[in-house]
Amino acid sequence: MKEIEISRVIIEQYGSKLTEHLENDVVIVGAGPAGLAAGYYLSKAGLKTSIIEKKLSIGGGIWGGAAGYNVITFEDKDILDEIGVTTSKQGDLYTADAIEFATALGYKAVTAGTAIFNVTEAEDIVLKDQIIKGVVVNNSAIRTLGLHVDPFCICAKHTIDATGHPAELVGMLKKRMPKRFPNELQEYFMDVETSEAGVVEKTCEVYPGLYITGMAVCDVFGLPRMGPIFGGMLKSGKKVAELIIKNKDKR
Amino acid sequence: MKEIEISRVIIEQYGSKLTEHLENDVVIVGAGPAGLAAGYYLSKAGLKTSIIEKKLSIGGGIWGGAAGYNVITFEDKDILDEIGVTTSKQGDLYTADAIEFATALGYKAVTAGTAIFNVTEAEDIVLKDQIIKGVVVNNSAIRTLGLHVDPFCICAKHTIDATGHPAELVGMLKKRMPKRFPNELQEYFMDVETSEAGVVEKTCEVYPGLYITGMAVCDVFGLPRMGPIFGGMLKSGKKVAELIIKNKDKR
Amino acid sequence: MKEIEISRVIIEQYGSKLTEHLENDVVIVGAGPAGLAAGYYLSKAGLKTSIIEKKLSIGGGIWGGAAGYNVITFEDKDILDEIGVTTSKQGDLYTADAIEFATALGYKAVTAGTAIFNVTEAEDIVLKDQIIKGVVVNNSAIRTLGLHVDPFCICAKHTIDATGHPAELVGMLKKRMPKRFPNELQEYFMDVETSEAGVVEKTCEVYPGLYITGMAVCDVFGLPRMGPIFGGMLKSGKKVAELIIKNKDKR
Amino acid sequence: MKEIEISRVIIEQYGSKLTEHLENDVVIVGAGPAGLAAGYYLSKAGLKTSIIEKKLSIGGGIWGGAAGYNVITFEDKDILDEIGVTTSKQGDLYTADAIEFATALGYKAVTAGTAIFNVTEAEDIVLKDQIIKGVVVNNSAIRTLGLHVDPFCICAKHTIDATGHPAELVGMLKKRMPKRFPNELQEYFMDVETSEAGVVEKTCEVYPGLYITGMAVCDVFGLPRMGPIFGGMLKSGKKVAELIIKNKDKR
Amino acid sequence: MKEIEISRVIIEQYGSKLTEHLENDVVIVGAGPAGLAAGYYLSKAGLKTSIIEKKLSIGGGIWGGAAGYNVITFEDKDILDEIGVTTSKQGDLYTADAIEFATALGYKAVTAGTAIFNVTEAEDIVLKDQIIKGVVVNNSAIRTLGLHVDPFCICAKHTIDATGHPAELVGMLKKRMPKRFPNELQEYFMDVETSEAGVVEKTCEVYPGLYITGMAVCDVFGLPRMGPIFGGMLKSGKKVAELIIKNKDKR
Amino acid sequence: MKEIEISRVIIEQYGSKLTEHLENDVVIVGAGPAGLAAGYYLSKAGLKTSIIEKKLSIGGGIWGGAAGYNVITFEDKDILDEIGVTTSKQGDLYTADAIEFATALGYKAVTAGTAIFNVTEAEDIVLKDQIIKGVVVNNSAIRTLGLHVDPFCICAKHTIDATGHPAELVGMLKKRMPKRFPNELQEYFMDVETSEAGVVEKTCEVYPGLYITGMAVCDVFGLPRMGPIFGGMLKSGKKVAELIIKNKDKR
Amino acid sequence: MKEIEISRVIIEQYGSKLTEHLENDVVIVGAGPAGLAAGYYLSKAGLKTSIIEKKLSIGGGIWGGAAGYNVITFEDKDILDEIGVTTSKQGDLYTADAIEFATALGYKAVTAGTAIFNVTEAEDIVLKDQIIKGVVVNNSAIRTLGLHVDPFCICAKHTIDATGHPAELVGMLKKRMPKRFPNELQEYFMDVETSEAGVVEKTCEVYPGLYITGMAVCDVFGLPRMGPIFGGMLKSGKKVAELIIKNKDKR
Amino acid sequence: MKEIEISRVIIEQYGSKLTEHLENDVVIVGAGPAGLAAGYYLSKAGLKTSIIEKKLSIGGGIWGGAAGYNVITFEDKDILDEIGVTTSKQGDLYTADAIEFATALGYKAVTAGTAIFNVTEAEDIVLKDQIIKGVVVNNSAIRTLGLHVDPFCICAKHTIDATGHPAELVGMLKKRMPKRFPNELQEYFMDVETSEAGVVEKTCEVYPGLYITGMAVCDVFGLPRMGPIFGGMLKSGKKVAELIIKNKDKR
Repeated sequence: MKEIEISRVIIEQYGSKLTEHLENDVVIVGAGPAGLAAGYYLSKAGLKTSIIEKKLSIGGGIWGGAAGYNVITFEDKDILDEIGVTTSKQGDLYTADAIEFATALGYKAVTAGTAIFNVTEAEDIVLKDQIIKGVVVNNSAIRTLGLHVDPFCICAKHTIDATGHPAELVGMLKKRMPKRFPNELQEYFMDVETSEAGVVEKTCEVYPGLYITGMAVCDVFGLPRMGPIFGGMLKSGKKVAELIIKNKDKR
Repeated sequence: MKEIEISRVIIEQYGSKLTEHLENDVVIVGAGPAGLAAGYYLSKAGLKTSIIEKKLSIGGGIWGGAAGYNVITFEDKDILDEIGVTTSKQGDLYTADAIEFATALGYKAVTAGTAIFNVTEAEDIVLKDQIIKGVVVNNSAIRTLGLHVDPFCICAKHTIDATGHPAELVGMLKKRMPKRFPNELQEYFMDVETSEAGVVEKTCEVYPGLYITGMAVCDVFGLPRMGPIFGGMLKSGKKVAELIIKNKDKR
Repeated sequence: MKEIEISRVIIEQYGSKLTEHLENDVVIVGAGPAGLAAGYYLSKAGLKTSIIEKKLSIGGGIWGGAAGYNVITFEDKDILDEIGVTTSKQGDLYTADAIEFATALGYKAVTAGTAIFNVTEAEDIVLKDQIIKGVVVNNSAIRTLGLHVDPFCICAKHTIDATGHPAELVGMLKKRMPKRFPNELQEYFMDVETSEAGVVEKTCEVYPGLYITGMAVCDVFGLPRMGPIFGGMLKSGKKVAELIIKNKDKR
Repeated sequence: MKEIEISRVIIEQYGSKLTEHLENDVVIVGAGPAGLAAGYYLSKAGLKTSIIEKKLSIGGGIWGGAAGYNVITFEDKDILDEIGVTTSKQGDLYTADAIEFATALGYKAVTAGTAIFNVTEAEDIVLKDQIIKGVVVNNSAIRTLGLHVDPFCICAKHTIDATGHPAELVGMLKKRMPKRFPNELQEYFMDVETSEAGVVEKTCEVYPGLYITGMAVCDVFGLPRMGPIFGGMLKSGKKVAELIIKNKDKR
Repeated sequence: MKEIEISRVIIEQYGSKLTEHLENDVVIVGAGPAGLAAGYYLSKAGLKTSIIEKKLSIGGGIWGGAAGYNVITFEDKDILDEIGVTTSKQGDLYTADAIEFATALGYKAVTAGTAIFNVTEAEDIVLKDQIIKGVVVNNSAIRTLGLHVDPFCICAKHTIDATGHPAELVGMLKKRMPKRFPNELQEYFMDVETSEAGVVEKTCEVYPGLYITGMAVCDVFGLPRMGPIFGGMLKSGKKVAELIIKNKDKR
Repeated sequence: MKEIEISRVIIEQYGSKLTEHLENDVVIVGAGPAGLAAGYYLSKAGLKTSIIEKKLSIGGGIWGGAAGYNVITFEDKDILDEIGVTTSKQGDLYTADAIEFATALGYKAVTAGTAIFNVTEAEDIVLKDQIIKGVVVNNSAIRTLGLHVDPFCICAKHTIDATGHPAELVGMLKKRMPKRFPNELQEYFMDVETSEAGVVEKTCEVYPGLYITGMAVCDVFGLPRMGPIFGGMLKSGKKVAELIIKNKDKR
Repeated sequence: MKEIEISRVIIEQYGSKLTEHLENDVVIVGAGPAGLAAGYYLSKAGLKTSIIEKKLSIGGGIWGGAAGYNVITFEDKDILDEIGVTTSKQGDLYTADAIEFATALGYKAVTAGTAIFNVTEAEDIVLKDQIIKGVVVNNSAIRTLGLHVDPFCICAKHTIDATGHPAELVGMLKKRMPKRFPNELQEYFMDVETSEAGVVEKTCEVYPGLYITGMAVCDVFGLPRMGPIFGGMLKSGKKVAELIIKNKDKR
Repeated sequence: MKEIEISRVIIEQYGSKLTEHLENDVVIVGAGPAGLAAGYYLSKAGLKTSIIEKKLSIGGGIWGGAAGYNVITFEDKDILDEIGVTTSKQGDLYTADAIEFATALGYKAVTAGTAIFNVTEAEDIVLKDQIIKGVVVNNSAIRTLGLHVDPFCICAKHTIDATGHPAELVGMLKKRMPKRFPNELQEYFMDVETSEAGVVEKTCEVYPGLYITGMAVCDVFGLPRMGPIFGGMLKSGKKVAELIIKNKDKR
């Protein structure tokens, strides 16, 4: 019966994709703008890359623009041109349709080779000899319901915290290593001029094997937040990819 | 201040898009696979088209594949080739990555010209002289919270119910015209062979000014459901677009 | 790394078990006393059998005895002896520890060869040419959260509704075939003497390809309910197994 | 069609009001008694003033009087006479109908020129060079649902925290500047005689660009709470208006 | 102590207002636009009038304009001029600020003499000799929590159902007199031209002692809904007041 | 250890009380005013009587008086004098403190010999040969949480439905015997004069073995409701006791 | 109409009771065993006493005995004899029916003259010149729903915290005077022998004007908890009454 | 009637089991893999042992394998062979069916003599003279609903915290003895090689009378977590049993 055939090919294809990506060059947690940009540039450079996303859909905070007005802004448009997003010049800013941007970026990451696992949540970190080796993941629906079920692991030479404002992976480190991360993980008041540059500049490897990108950078370094302007997110994602590409043979 | 500039261009651009699309050739309710396909083909043909989507993200039931195994299947791949989705032949079936398919389809619809309004919910229908003239919409977050707030209208010469399994617009008709829609709105047991063909064949104008596409067709005609095989959805979306293009000067 | 190895063998073993059981001789929905007993006897007879259970644990209504007093009763003890449950004679009744009974029964079913898929929910039926061919299933955590995700299918020559009081599969039939199932699906008032015999007697094939066992029988035929006495459940499970074994080559 | 016309004029009028008020002399967060009084006096003095209110209706804690007995009290009635509220002398106190007071005050603020944005929530502060420049706002329904959507900004030369008991804006400062605001933000035990005078006296600019009024003053300075007597609220609102009018050209 | 004095005058004033209004000429259920307009005109004509409102604030669906854009529309402005609302001519329509309108209308009703009891819910009807004699009311917070607490009664010669879309009082009649109210209580699809006139025309005494006004009229007679245009609401409220004033000595 | 001793005597005393009351002359469902009065008079007459109450406390709708004003009324005071409740004459009515009345009535029922099982819920009926023989009960906390746990039985020669407004036991009959109970189970509009007499008059054996008392009588016969006047409840409870005492040897 | 008369006498009687008790000799927060015993002994001694109880029913933790086994224990029975509770000797312990005990105690407190206000919650304290003068109260249903409504005050020369385990009033002190109450407010591990004596011994005036009784004593002094043995509660309630009677003219 | 007989034998058998186990050699809190293994080995050695489990079913985190893939892993299979679980060699690992393992282990524990009380929650500890003497327990459904009901005690010479990740009993100690347990109770990042050995090694008596086993060991000593590999759990359960057997006459 065709019903059996459909079920079989889906389960087998997914199973292959998943077991093949238990070991990666890079695992990214969070499929928002910075995580997707990082995935795109890493995959384009030939690194085996997976993204873990706890929601059903990807795109993070892109879809709603500002307060649901689904338009977003940028200070320049180089990366947008590269990924094929239509822009409109408005004074000093470029605007784009939020849905076009979210879909273009996701499409580019996947077609470049990034494996995305949605409905999947990183609940902890794998740590060996003081080096982060990947993440402990679970079905996010099972987690949301509070069912008592064990996780499994998705490992990588390099792990990226692209979880946005909560900086979830760094938060897990801070909980067990409070002295190493003494500051509150929180973004600062809004100040666009300062934040757009700062978020890129501070993108870095924050602990052996763990990198931060996007709003997680603001949380870790207490940088100002920036609202519905997404250039810094893309550049931070690109920068973290470049850092890892440079380090790719380090581990 | 840049913060003011960003806020202003977003509010103005969205306001323009919205007021410009209060009158349309076609308004589609639901940004799932059939609705997005319809939007793509209608916009490509030059019809002014809007999609109303109550969720924050688009894509409907595509993202999770089957039970969260994010792979989907098709019986043929013509439309997939057209929208740029990578496929893999598995026996008689083609498989594709669910996230690649969702983003490719959304990207194609928007870049073809479809205006998508997410976080927006159709709560009723505009009806004049027994002809459907568009939908009554509201902010879906306000609706979900049960706040007592009036809606506004997005009108069109042709309205498409692409709401999927609940067939929401037809349900609103049925509630006030029980004799005209005497059957329960429900899909039938699963039977892929029957349903993939049936859903396309039965795509039609179900009431003056109102068309149905995708799973809404199954609900209205009691056709079998089909599970994670999406060819019928795309073809139904394409067919409803063709029907309207043919009728475009009728109203 | 051992973490990768553990993840890999679990995903592969589960994947094999699942794809192997997409086609079965028998699929049972519900891992309560009747469903587990049916699974045990069917597997013992060599039929390839799967059980779908939406909860995380199996055992259905066994664990809590009566009102949380975790002791249960039986009128005779033949099957209990067979599955290795300690009993105590109390007047005309036998009592057993609820937890011993639940674990013994589950253990026997699995070791006899039944494949149990927990956290998995039957959301619909596969129907071809008026014959039931299996069930449409999904991850029950995804379903409980209301995520919009497609199901897949687990098919079988014979399907058993062992869902207990709601008689869920028969309810799905009744919803689309109200004339064929005109009565309310509800158990009758409690009357142990009548019900213990009746539930076994009325265990049957209720629609081509679909059998009922356990409390689902009470619901379908309006038999009295019986409370914390479980002999009828076991005998009904055994009877449905025998009916199918007899019919095993019919489809 | 009239439906389109109604929709268009509402969207356009609101859009104009909103973009016009992205830059203000004063932005007030909270449309309770102190915030509305401040708005009334500021607008009367010709300052461009906006109020951000997260609920659908305005009036804060006025409507229910004490424990739902919708009557409120005052120690004197000068401001009430000015805004047209009927009072009744009861011993040393004046009483008024809570609903008359809430509506009179709101009506006066709006007709004096204050722009009120309800269903809008201040989620953060704009800070430049150690001076508060306005607030970061979002649709409060979207926020309540936890949707991941970016905010926009409503800027002003002077910002007023009129959020009442939680002193929300000061709380945001305290979270990032714990040393500058070392005390818990909490009102003290009830003591009407002390609090009615104290809340007016302590109304002030608490940080460059940020003023406090009403119950927020009690929270910041640990003053006693006062219950359903509203004179202090009105006088504090009037005082903060006067302070800003005096400073209006400072920034 | 002043705390005691404040408590005492509030409890006594409220107690007097409540016991004085246990018997009324008119009791109105619902403090939305039609109910408030009715209260204003009835009180102005000297009838003793109470309004029961289950929410904490009054104003019903006025506050949010359309989808939270807090602007509303009218076809003419006579009543608005009478109650002191600023209007702006926009093509064929007049617009007004939603908050100004809500507060002006509430203020006018109360100062005209209407007693409003908020946080109070009508849970049933008093019926004697086939004539409605008032409503059975309770604390709406107690009701919302499902506490098992008896109600009391607010009686009147004339009762108005101004509960809006659910037409709650008529619904209570329909539940016990299904033959007298055979139709579903539901508004029809949106059609502004038809509805604005219809809602006024059909405002009437629907059962001895019970009148309907506002959206309740649409529900009872199946008239089209009209969205954020409020002229019909005001005129219906005025008409129901005139009907009762004419009948005031009938009972 | 004293901890063990305390635990042991409580479990044993409760176990004895429960097993002793598995068989009763009368089982009453609902410990509101009518149920408690029935229990008091039945126990006083020497019948072995149990009350099943799903809440933790007894007293039903007595505690809150009207809308939380904890005073209740009566038309005469004979039973109140008998159970020791202080009354105050107010015009034609007697008033009493709601808490004094609830505690006095409960105290009288228990000291007369009625066994009350709280946190216990009747989920069904025992029916043999068309005669009701008692109720099927469960722990109400387990039921509220939806845990899948079997019930046990509390049997009696006579069963009383004193569940108040929902008339729960009659509702269970109606669900399986719709023809025997064709009317909706609902009280009528409020009309105190009619209801106080009617509820006593219609107190009766409504099905072999099942009696109704209190508000359940109103629901079954569609009598008017009466609000916070409790004389009819007490008299109905007394009457049902007298009916059963007269019939006590019938079964 | 009788409906009006019933409503009027209830509202007036309650209003009188409430305004009369805005000033008290003693106000007790919490109508559990210790609070009721205190109320009984204080009222018997002629002190004007009110109890504030946030639930609808009184009795606190008495009703359910241990884990729902509704039997409770005592070490001696003097107070039980005084309030008329039947006891049974079981080894060294006395047992009583939980429901008989709860109702007897409540009945005794009210008939001795204590005014109980249920559905009423103490949300804060009145403090003047470092002396506690009573409590700030609100409708507990309104509080539970989070409605923004002001409270009123119930004042007294002496205030008793009988709120049980959370020691709510002391907790309010601790929040604003952390240095005066440096210890965590928490009971210690269970140890019946120690706790029954300790809770009585430590019953005291804990701050000028504020006394503690019952489990609140355990929380404040970190005494062991004691489980379903209630002698200490009664003796602590009696002791706090005696302390206040001795001090009654102090303030 | 048979209904009465069934009810009686269940209540009596459970009552006997419960009162008999108010005093134990060992009480274990938590029926997950370590707790069940401990129960099995303790009972086999002849110690009177009870397990308290708050859920309805036993098995803890076993049922779902990894992320719902119901397969689990082990490093060796000695204990599995002993309890009758089928294993499969996969590289260096053994795999087993999660449901077979859960039922086998539960079955072995009960048939060895362990009394399991499910739907029962440990809410505190009994402590005498600085020695832990057992646990304070309650009906977990009553606890989950927040009903105010007292607990009872299950005492033992030795108490085991097998509550898994939260280490609930140690947490209760830490709350009142923060200096004795200064570290956060939290497991460390995942590292299977380290944790499987460590959890067994650190299994110990952590406070006089209190032992820890399973994941609670990881929490108390900050050891790495290990995911779906269960050998350490079994060995830790076995080791804690051996420690207690050695100490059995110590108290």
